[in-house]
Parts: sequence; C-alpha cells; structure tokens
Amino acid sequence: MNLLPQGGSADYVVTGAWSQKAVKEAKRVGTVKIAASTEAESFKRIPKQGELTLDPNAAYVHITTNNTIFGTEWHYVPDTGSVPLVADTSSDMFSRPIDVAKHGLIYAGAQKNLGPSGVTLVIVRDDLVKRTPPSLPTMLQYSVHAENKSLYNTPPVFGVYTMRLVMKWLLKEGGLAAIDKKNARKADKLYAEIDRTGFYRGHAQTDSRSRMNVTFRLPSEDLEKRFAKEATSAGLDGLKGHRSVGGLRASIYNAFPEAGVDALVQFMKEFERKNG
Amino acid sequence: MNLLPQGGSADYVVTGAWSQKAVKEAKRVGTVKIAASTEAESFKRIPKQGELTLDPNAAYVHITTNNTIFGTEWHYVPDTGSVPLVADTSSDMFSRPIDVAKHGLIYAGAQKNLGPSGVTLVIVRDDLVKRTPPSLPTMLQYSVHAENKSLYNTPPVFGVYTMRLVMKWLLKEGGLAAIDKKNARKADKLYAEIDRTGFYRGHAQTDSRSRMNVTFRLPSEDLEKRFAKEATSAGLDGLKGHRSVGGLRASIYNAFPEAGVDALVQFMKEFERKNG
Repeated sequence: MNLLPQGGSADYVVTGAWSQKAVKEAKRVGTVKIAASTEAESFKRIPKQGELTLDPNAAYVHITTNNTIFGTEWHYVPDTGSVPLVADTSSDMFSRPIDVAKHGLIYAGAQKNLGPSGVTLVIVRDDLVKRTPPSLPTMLQYSVHAENKSLYNTPPVFGVYTMRLVMKWLLKEGGLAAIDKKNARKADKLYAEIDRTGFYRGHAQTDSRSRMNVTFRLPSEDLEKRFAKEATSAGLDGLKGHRSVGGLRASIYNAFPEAGVDALVQFMKEFERKNG
Repeated sequence: MNLLPQGGSADYVVTGAWSQKAVKEAKRVGTVKIAASTEAESFKRIPKQGELTLDPNAAYVHITTNNTIFGTEWHYVPDTGSVPLVADTSSDMFSRPIDVAKHGLIYAGAQKNLGPSGVTLVIVRDDLVKRTPPSLPTMLQYSVHAENKSLYNTPPVFGVYTMRLVMKWLLKEGGLAAIDKKNARKADKLYAEIDRTGFYRGHAQTDSRSRMNVTFRLPSEDLEKRFAKEATSAGLDGLKGHRSVGGLRASIYNAFPEAGVDALVQFMKEFERKNG
C-alpha cells in the first residue's frame, strides 16, 4: 500500500505460506508478478539467483527470508539491481547480521526474536518513505510514522519496552555476530542428527535449510505421531509439524536454549534406537 | 472502511479533535455529512438531540462519546432511528454502564480505562459485520476478525491478558454500576470546587461536562502556569491543559484514585486562598 504506485507492478518470490499471503494482499493494490516459486516442489527450497525472473521496472522485489512452516531460509541476499528489495524477516530478524544497505525495506513482526506480539519493526530507505500515497488512511502511512518518529499515535508501549530489553540482552550476549554463531551451532546439531542415518528425513533441501525452524519426517506417520507424543511426555513440547507439511518441526528461535537442542538430539537418538 | 459502502454517505457529529480526525479519515472512503458541530463554540458543549441534522439514508452516525482535550462528554445516547450509531468510546469506555443495544458499533482504544496501548475493543452488530467489503486488506476486515474469533492473526497477547485483569478488577469493584458512582463522585468534587467561587472557570458547559477529563481556566495565563508548576511540586502532575484549549486539565480515569481528587481539591482551595 505504501510502495506500489497506482498502475505499478511488483515482483514476488513465493517460498511458502507467508509469501503466498503477501501476494494475495499485494494483488488488492496493484499488479503482482511471480519472480519465482518453489510451490511445485512443496516449498522445500529457496530459488537461486539465476532462477529469479526480475522485472527492471518493478516497484520492488518481495521475499520472505525464513519460512516457518516449510523450514527453509534464504542464505543469500538476492541481487535486484536498482529495484528495491523488500524483505519480510518476521521469523529470522536478529538471528544473524543483516546487510541493511542491500534492502529497500525490512519488516518484522516482533513475536519470534524481538519481543511480544503487537509490534512490528520496519526499516525503510528514506527515498522509499516518500512513495507513500497521501490517499492512504493516516495510520497506514509509513511517511506519517517516519515524520513523527513512530510517535504519531500512542505506540504499544509495553511491546516497545520489551523489545528494548531484548535488544539489551542481545548486546550482552555479544550482538548479532554471537547469536549468529549460537544459532548455527544449534541448527547444525539437529541437522547432523537428521543426516546421521536414513531414519529421519529433512523436509528442506540442504542448501535452503532454516536455522529457526527445523522440519523433518520419520519413516511413517504413525512413528511421527508417537515421536510427538513421547517427546511431549519427555518435556519436549510443540514438535508437531504444520498440517500442510506433516512430520515434525523444531522451532529454535534466539530465545530457545542450546541445552534444549541437546536434549532433543538425545531424544532423537533414543527414539531411533527403539523404533529404527 | 468497513461500514461505508462505495458511493455511500455517513453522518458525523463533530465535538472535538478526535471527531475531526474521524471526519478526515472517513472522507478518504466516502461522503461525510456533518450532522452537527460545536467548533464555533470552542467545543465547550455536546449538541442536543434537536440540533442533529440526520440523513435517514446515512450508512451510520458517528459520535465521540468523550472529548479528552475539551473535557466534554455525551450524557445521552442520540436517537438515530434506523441508522446505526457508531461510537468512539476510547476515553470513557467502561467508566459507566453502556446501552449496547442502542449502538451499531462501539470501538475503544484500550489505553484509558481498559489496559495498555496496542489493543482496541470493538463491539459490532452481526448485520454490520457483513458490510465489510472483501476488497479491504485482510487485516482490516472486521468480518475476518469476527469469523476467526479475533484469532486470525497472533493478537497482542500481553494487552489482551492485561485487559482481562482490568475486567476482573472492575467486577471485583462492583462492576460498571459501582465505577459509575465512583466516577460521578470524583468528578462532582472537582466541579463543585470549580463552581464554588468565580476564581476557577470550567471550559465545558455544565450539561456537557466530562467525568474523565475536567478542564478549567484561572483568571490569567500566568496564574495557570504557576498553578501547574506548584501542583507538580506538590505531587499533582500532568495538569497542564492541551495547547488548543489552554488552562488546566485533570484526567481522572477509572484507575485514578478518589484520594487524588481530594488532594487536588485541597490544593485548589489553598491556591485560591493565596492567589485569589
């Protein structure tokens, strides 16, 4: 609504449920071109740079950096030339350093790595703020919020305050470089266990694996049900995968402790020993 | 956006800054007719039923039940015939019983009497939810939120939880009937002090006085400045009026204790004794 001018067109890379929703909403505003989609492959991977069909006249290119349901994540920032890159980073924001300069706009709902639900972080380039059509409802105008330093209205103060505490915690932990290493270590442990034998099968293709949401299958749906149930009994909760993918999903956002990952790996070994 | 159909028109009663803003936003959607305005009288009163020019074909009639800046409040529910009444009750919601059946839609930002900023309470009649145009962005569609029992998206859970605690507190205090009496008592004490001599002058006309925001002037701006300064030193903070009205404003929402009102009345007596 802020970046797509009347009669304009935008490029969308479709890598999962959230980018599908983004396409649906953008179509209410203007023309949407699909730059690439991995839907035919059950969204098991992120398209490569060479696969993107980019329109040099697009208003922007939109990507979803991490796909919570399918467990895939962009491991490169696509080159979009002079067209601004818009990234929905809701589920991996501040899980690793970000090259902000390569983006036109970054947005992230807070509730994964940043703070409580009800706040959205937006980083937007000065020249793009100026695109806001003055016909938009005032509260939806990025330009109004930018001009008023996010204090045009009474903001959700508790959420903003909590984000401040999380940012202080991140800095104390060593900042994005340190959390990046920790997240890599956590995810690597799980993927190593998935790859150790043929018992577990990762949903995402190796080069597209998410470090926030690790999705995997077992030899049968019965075993998957048993795994989820026994894991819950063992204190490892919330592992049932999204119904559109099935299987299991371990969400290991910034706040999830490495000891929890170690416990899950131990549980996986034990489960395979008994059922493999 | 949800209630005004394409080509439709809505009636707005303008009683202060918030209804002016509502008019500005509604004009982006359709035709706005001003049913009444007290702007020429510095918004010192609420129009009477007989002063409202109502269009029987209007999509709705919009009022702002309490005007924080000017210190006025509706003390009757206007009769709008078969046209639905839409009430912005953000600053006096749950300060008194509400005859919900007389309204088509009630909305209230939480941050006065309900909870922290970042949540809005909406009560809407079943038939009006059906007016939502499907062309609206999904997140702005009242129908989507109604169908999904306010769980279409992850709601601002902390704010919702805090509202629950406030509602439990309200019930423990005796509910809306009890808070109504307490709020009347608090406001009456302040207005009695304002009316006691000619030293203080209420901004709002007697029949339109707000029980949430008590606005008053002193004989001179110098005295008003001194009043605000000395009151702050005495622990009575936030009394400076809004710049568009000047003077003083005591905001005495549900959570403000009666003892605070008593302290302010004592301070006012003492200030008049020394400066009157």
